Amino acid sequence: MKKIKCDVLVIGGGPAGGVSAVTAKTNYPNKEILVVREFEIQLVPCAIPYIFGETLGCSEKDVASCGMASDMGISTLIGEVEDIDTKEKLAYMKDCQISFDKLIFATGSEPFVHSSLQHSLELDGVFTVPKNKTLIDKLKDYSDSKENIVVVGSGFIGIEIAVEFATKNKNVTVIGGSKHILKNAFDSDIGLQAEELMLKYGVKYIGDDRVVEIIDQNNDNIVNAVKLKSGNIIDADVVILATGYKPNTSLAQKAGIALAHYRGIWVDEYMRTQNHDIFAVGDCSARRDFITKESSKVMLASTSSAEGRVAGSSLYGIKYLKGFSGTIAIFSTMIGKRAFSSAGLTQEQAQKANIDVVVGYFQGLNRHPATIPNAQKQLVKLVVMRHGGQIIGGQVVGGEETGEMINLIGLIIESHFDVYRVMSMQIATQPMLTSAPTSYPLIMASVMAIDKIEKPQ
Amino acid sequence: MKKIKCDVLVIGGGPAGGVSAVTAKTNYPNKEILVVREFEIQLVPCAIPYIFGETLGCSEKDVASCGMASDMGISTLIGEVEDIDTKEKLAYMKDCQISFDKLIFATGSEPFVHSSLQHSLELDGVFTVPKNKTLIDKLKDYSDSKENIVVVGSGFIGIEIAVEFATKNKNVTVIGGSKHILKNAFDSDIGLQAEELMLKYGVKYIGDDRVVEIIDQNNDNIVNAVKLKSGNIIDADVVILATGYKPNTSLAQKAGIALAHYRGIWVDEYMRTQNHDIFAVGDCSARRDFITKESSKVMLASTSSAEGRVAGSSLYGIKYLKGFSGTIAIFSTMIGKRAFSSAGLTQEQAQKANIDVVVGYFQGLNRHPATIPNAQKQLVKLVVMRHGGQIIGGQVVGGEETGEMINLIGLIIESHFDVYRVMSMQIATQPMLTSAPTSYPLIMASVMAIDKIEKPQ
Repeated sequence: MKKIKCDVLVIGGGPAGGVSAVTAKTNYPNKEILVVREFEIQLVPCAIPYIFGETLGCSEKDVASCGMASDMGISTLIGEVEDIDTKEKLAYMKDCQISFDKLIFATGSEPFVHSSLQHSLELDGVFTVPKNKTLIDKLKDYSDSKENIVVVGSGFIGIEIAVEFATKNKNVTVIGGSKHILKNAFDSDIGLQAEELMLKYGVKYIGDDRVVEIIDQNNDNIVNAVKLKSGNIIDADVVILATGYKPNTSLAQKAGIALAHYRGIWVDEYMRTQNHDIFAVGDCSARRDFITKESSKVMLASTSSAEGRVAGSSLYGIKYLKGFSGTIAIFSTMIGKRAFSSAGLTQEQAQKANIDVVVGYFQGLNRHPATIPNAQKQLVKLVVMRHGGQIIGGQVVGGEETGEMINLIGLIIESHFDVYRVMSMQIATQPMLTSAPTSYPLIMASVMAIDKIEKPQ
Repeated sequence: MKKIKCDVLVIGGGPAGGVSAVTAKTNYPNKEILVVREFEIQLVPCAIPYIFGETLGCSEKDVASCGMASDMGISTLIGEVEDIDTKEKLAYMKDCQISFDKLIFATGSEPFVHSSLQHSLELDGVFTVPKNKTLIDKLKDYSDSKENIVVVGSGFIGIEIAVEFATKNKNVTVIGGSKHILKNAFDSDIGLQAEELMLKYGVKYIGDDRVVEIIDQNNDNIVNAVKLKSGNIIDADVVILATGYKPNTSLAQKAGIALAHYRGIWVDEYMRTQNHDIFAVGDCSARRDFITKESSKVMLASTSSAEGRVAGSSLYGIKYLKGFSGTIAIFSTMIGKRAFSSAGLTQEQAQKANIDVVVGYFQGLNRHPATIPNAQKQLVKLVVMRHGGQIIGGQVVGGEETGEMINLIGLIIESHFDVYRVMSMQIATQPMLTSAPTSYPLIMASVMAIDKIEKPQ
């Protein structure tokens, strides 16, 4: 058995693993960093939906570049770690043994499928959306010649895939199991706007029903339809189960690492497991919500990257204070020419968590004056603590600028800023790029929230 | 003489005056608010350049809406206040006397022209860029049939006007008097990128020379050319002096209100003059820079709006703590399909102010992966305190998202955040809307700055 020695072993080559390795090498240039990853070619996870439509059109256009890591002198091994001896600090692959000083789990997540549907995965035409080029190519090749596509799940991945398939003039139905799409990120008023737009792009939506059976009518191991709880049958040549992801932690568990909720690896603020030589970052780690401090299922490449930066710079002692405690759910997506984004808690989530909030709401335009070509509506909704005025959530609908506006709101939430502060914040406005200085929707939504706090109904 | 009574008198109907009035009415709904403004029709100031090219094409498309104010019950008078008796709390117009309890000066700014060129304003074909529809229409009508346009000044207004005229295939020359355009907002490396793009759009640029004379060769009171310090003569049918603005404070001075630097009205943090019943907001107030605390000439509708919100809510006592002290220079503009934005100090300004800084610099893409249609380069440069790591300036070049990215950097500067905090901030990334989570340029520029702080050369 071949023996390899490194200082820092990173298991996993997705965003969390990659950023951990690069950050580790930047902070500890003399340490030997080794990344073990499963695939020679890694996909960019968030762009997988765009493989299926006109936007990218093939998985070759969705390949992550690892150039930076090799330029920096980070080593890579393709393969699978099968076992870890945490006491001896050894990792075992099929034909080699790796000794390490520090270990970072970045083993990511895998598609979650409800137990009642798991056996249907064996049928031809039934797929999940894993971060695996071979399997994504299989789904793409299979679906290219097919007509009826059923997407189960109305989260970001499900909706983005559905809209992409619709651009290829397929008959696409999303079965959501919730009153409107994207319900974890948007309140009904805004989720319904996204839903209407999706329908305009030719996607059908069945919200108030759920799949109870995936049907192989001819017993030829090929899917034909799905059966819903209502008894309705929907024709399906392809069924895509986009019903979430779960932490991939079997290796960690086998190694005796403590897990927490949803089988994520327990970590402290600095992404350390209970063994301070072993870290976990990204989707395989157990997260808590930034506001409610409850267990969080949010899985985001951006959050994973932030965790990778924290872990990679804390391996040999805490170098930088971590600026946040808990995960902010922060998302964006695009449906046609409209962008929808959300950060923190929705109003409905806040109320469910029994948080006393008011809402600030303002709709303006994303350019000024209104006569600027291609100006579109821009809407900001803020979820605000009634006492103190801290902003704990925000939703934005607008043009492409929305993707960065939500990062502004994210920082406001992360910094516990209140509406009084946002009300007078200094901004840049420009006719071709932003709304008017006098009615910048983020500021106006703060003003509206202040008004509600001060004038209780 | 007609007598009018109000509680709050606002003089000026630009962004500062408008926001002050609306904020005052929101905070003190029972008070009578009166706005006196000079023009029946107010232009949106920042969009004036777009009147001259293809973007708007006429001043009628650049009219500010005052609908909100009248809906709220704010009164308006068109005319000029000629005198103020601060002791008796009376303002005098030609044919009426207004009594007030609180007074807000929002008298704005007027074009600044160097004394050596002032007499040339009498020539036909020589113009400034005032916020006055009649005069803007005059410039537009005059220039429509003309060929050779000379713009004096290479700040935002000068450059935006020049590019707009170029879209109409005119022969446009900008005479800058500085080594590159937009020098108050961008360091040379980035300013030169903007300049190159401007040249591509057909605008000529003369940087290292300045206008010493405006020539009327035929003594017919019509401009023909400008003469430069070098002796060179540039043909000119139209000369536009875009050489900055100065506070419009003659009324305030006449009323005995104390002025400060650059003849701006002296105000405290809450926009109060030395008389606490009298406020000044917007371009007519004297500003200090947020970082250097030196006098600042920065005039922005966005800053004016923020000041209007502070004044409007502080009239009858301080209701909300002001979140910032001093003006952050924060700008955006668009040249063709590239957006350039800047906040805080440039590296050159910081060095000139004798501030010990390092620079973090990162260039990536504004979409991910690189194969996403219309992805363009995105560049972030951060100016960072070597000791402590606070971010005191940022420059961004990219697509339309740049206009909101600079607001994120603005908030970072305003909050005195450091690169250590930004390094691990939580963001949303999405293929169609932002750069990659692993290499978000703002975060990467922070990482690069940290590296420079820790590894001094």
